[in-house]
Amino acid sequence: MITLASDFGSPYPAAMKGVLLSKSSAQLVDIAHDFPRQDLRTGAFWLREVLPYFPAAVHLVVIDPGVGTDRRVLVVEAGEHRLVGPDNGILVPVAEQLVEDPMYYATNPKNADSATFHGRDVFAPLAAKIHERGLQPVVEADRFESVTPTERIKFPDPDVQDQEAFGAVLVVDDFGNTITNVPGSFLAGQFGETILVDGRETPVARTYAAVPPENRLVTVGSHGHVELAVNRGRGDESFGLAPGDTVYLAPVE
Amino acid sequence: MITLASDFGSPYPAAMKGVLLSKSSAQLVDIAHDFPRQDLRTGAFWLREVLPYFPAAVHLVVIDPGVGTDRRVLVVEAGEHRLVGPDNGILVPVAEQLVEDPMYYATNPKNADSATFHGRDVFAPLAAKIHERGLQPVVEADRFESVTPTERIKFPDPDVQDQEAFGAVLVVDDFGNTITNVPGSFLAGQFGETILVDGRETPVARTYAAVPPENRLVTVGSHGHVELAVNRGRGDESFGLAPGDTVYLAPVE
Amino acid sequence: MITLASDFGSPYPAAMKGVLLSKSSAQLVDIAHDFPRQDLRTGAFWLREVLPYFPAAVHLVVIDPGVGTDRRVLVVEAGEHRLVGPDNGILVPVAEQLVEDPMYYATNPKNADSATFHGRDVFAPLAAKIHERGLQPVVEADRFESVTPTERIKFPDPDVQDQEAFGAVLVVDDFGNTITNVPGSFLAGQFGETILVDGRETPVARTYAAVPPENRLVTVGSHGHVELAVNRGRGDESFGLAPGDTVYLAPVE
Repeated sequence: MITLASDFGSPYPAAMKGVLLSKSSAQLVDIAHDFPRQDLRTGAFWLREVLPYFPAAVHLVVIDPGVGTDRRVLVVEAGEHRLVGPDNGILVPVAEQLVEDPMYYATNPKNADSATFHGRDVFAPLAAKIHERGLQPVVEADRFESVTPTERIKFPDPDVQDQEAFGAVLVVDDFGNTITNVPGSFLAGQFGETILVDGRETPVARTYAAVPPENRLVTVGSHGHVELAVNRGRGDESFGLAPGDTVYLAPVE
Repeated sequence: MITLASDFGSPYPAAMKGVLLSKSSAQLVDIAHDFPRQDLRTGAFWLREVLPYFPAAVHLVVIDPGVGTDRRVLVVEAGEHRLVGPDNGILVPVAEQLVEDPMYYATNPKNADSATFHGRDVFAPLAAKIHERGLQPVVEADRFESVTPTERIKFPDPDVQDQEAFGAVLVVDDFGNTITNVPGSFLAGQFGETILVDGRETPVARTYAAVPPENRLVTVGSHGHVELAVNRGRGDESFGLAPGDTVYLAPVE
Repeated sequence: MITLASDFGSPYPAAMKGVLLSKSSAQLVDIAHDFPRQDLRTGAFWLREVLPYFPAAVHLVVIDPGVGTDRRVLVVEAGEHRLVGPDNGILVPVAEQLVEDPMYYATNPKNADSATFHGRDVFAPLAAKIHERGLQPVVEADRFESVTPTERIKFPDPDVQDQEAFGAVLVVDDFGNTITNVPGSFLAGQFGETILVDGRETPVARTYAAVPPENRLVTVGSHGHVELAVNRGRGDESFGLAPGDTVYLAPVE
């Protein structure tokens, strides 16, 4: 199995699929190709949330603003998973989510005949090769060497105290649910009550439908983080929050 | 085979795919994940139109504004098809299209460890299980009991008389074609002529290209309903109609 | 393997998939279903760029403004590939890219029971049949006859001289990269220098990241054509260009 994730939109992912199907017998599974363009942080967040649900696979990831430059090509061994993509940080959070100590290998494409579409010309052939070898280590055959990633994407840590938390918005999902870095455990024991979200009294609820339609709530999202939402509406718009914004959770006086 | 339909956008469907591929050997087929958010009627319409073209399969459907509440989980046996989704009405029109007497089974998720993403945590594991059992009945093994659906989605009936019809717009497709509840048979014998659509003289045509580009027409859509369209344009905008609006078809004086 | 390409948006492609899976054992691969609506030129460009990366397959293509009229149904034998779609020109550029002398066969759907959805009712069953026969010739069995395509889509030729080129914009991709008809060889020997693009001094670069973010560049895109781009931005907006516009490349004085 080879999964594909990119910020390519359409139809460039189909060219990668053609290469993968020409060079391997892998089943292909799309993760998404509408990740925000060249936004490594958002892509890294979603890959960390989604890829661990998959069985052993090669995961081809191409969000790559530095395509064609001398940034390296990375292959990560993370348990039974193999990640293939650019050495720009995008692979690190998911790798560390999959296993405690992922192994990173890198190479520089030599005599690259592609400067603008490594997804098709470099990463897809490499992913197909790794798949056909049964996910075997790639070091000797491909002149990869063990490395430390050049870039790492880190998400900010929240400042969680007994009764209050200073957090940050990590991403907003397609529903408008606003996902923070505050762990869901912060809300333990508070369901059915209200807290202050940036000074606004907001019900703490287990489900979206626990509050009336169009009403705000704070909940624990499916990723385990505190999430700001609106039942049948958009939390980001109602709370006026976007990725990177800070958020302050506190008890009602 | 397991098909997937949701209003999730991206990338949440990929988490469901990971679960399905981890727990089954099924071939996965996307129906759509951009159904209008939390719009049970439009989703129910399209599922009724599309799923009957499939061979025997498990169909996983998640448009679920009540996720995490005590709404039940439904499994439907409809001939060789199995439908899995929430007991909110979305499954009923397609089930009744597939067979005359679908069998409905329901359970309540117990000790649910998921309040916000039943697609991943409840429905996908259940769909995988049913697939792996060869679509066998689910009653005993899973503590499902035979039920009558709590909710039913019904589409309004048109008032069709000999020469005129009072109908309603059911959905608008991606082309802007405006699909009504008036059966296509209403137009029999009128192709090549004109009728009044809300008072506007409109040609009755078998094909979009039978009228000049940008011109309005009334035709029988691929679903068998009367459809208001514009050749190479959008019928909804030209006729000024949206889902739920009424429409009046009558002979030219 | 059957690939699917259309301008259908969602969810009509799923009805075609249901038919294909009911009538064949083929693996299905989506090329794209968001091709610009009824835009034969853009669709033809992308199919020519993408399909040659695939292994032997049946390629089902439905961008078909003349659906239901007497335009013919075309099957193309292009080496090991088979193309199925309307005889409106969309298949010609990719066929001629795949092999020098593609063989074209056509028929008219007889007693068509579909006037508005040939993708589901005519082309998908035909594609499934060809797949199940192992891509064997289709002439006798299906009453197809060898033909010359009724329509051909031709892309304009650029006027390339020693130092300057008069070209045209063919398409704009999802990144905003503006793809011209000027061959990439025009830029040979000029990387690292600047040229005039419609009078604007623009760096010639091998990679997007060779210029600072938000800066314009001219490069050779992954399709081998001269491409006007902005690093981490949209070339079409910055250069003020759209498909069909002319573009003039010349040396800096």
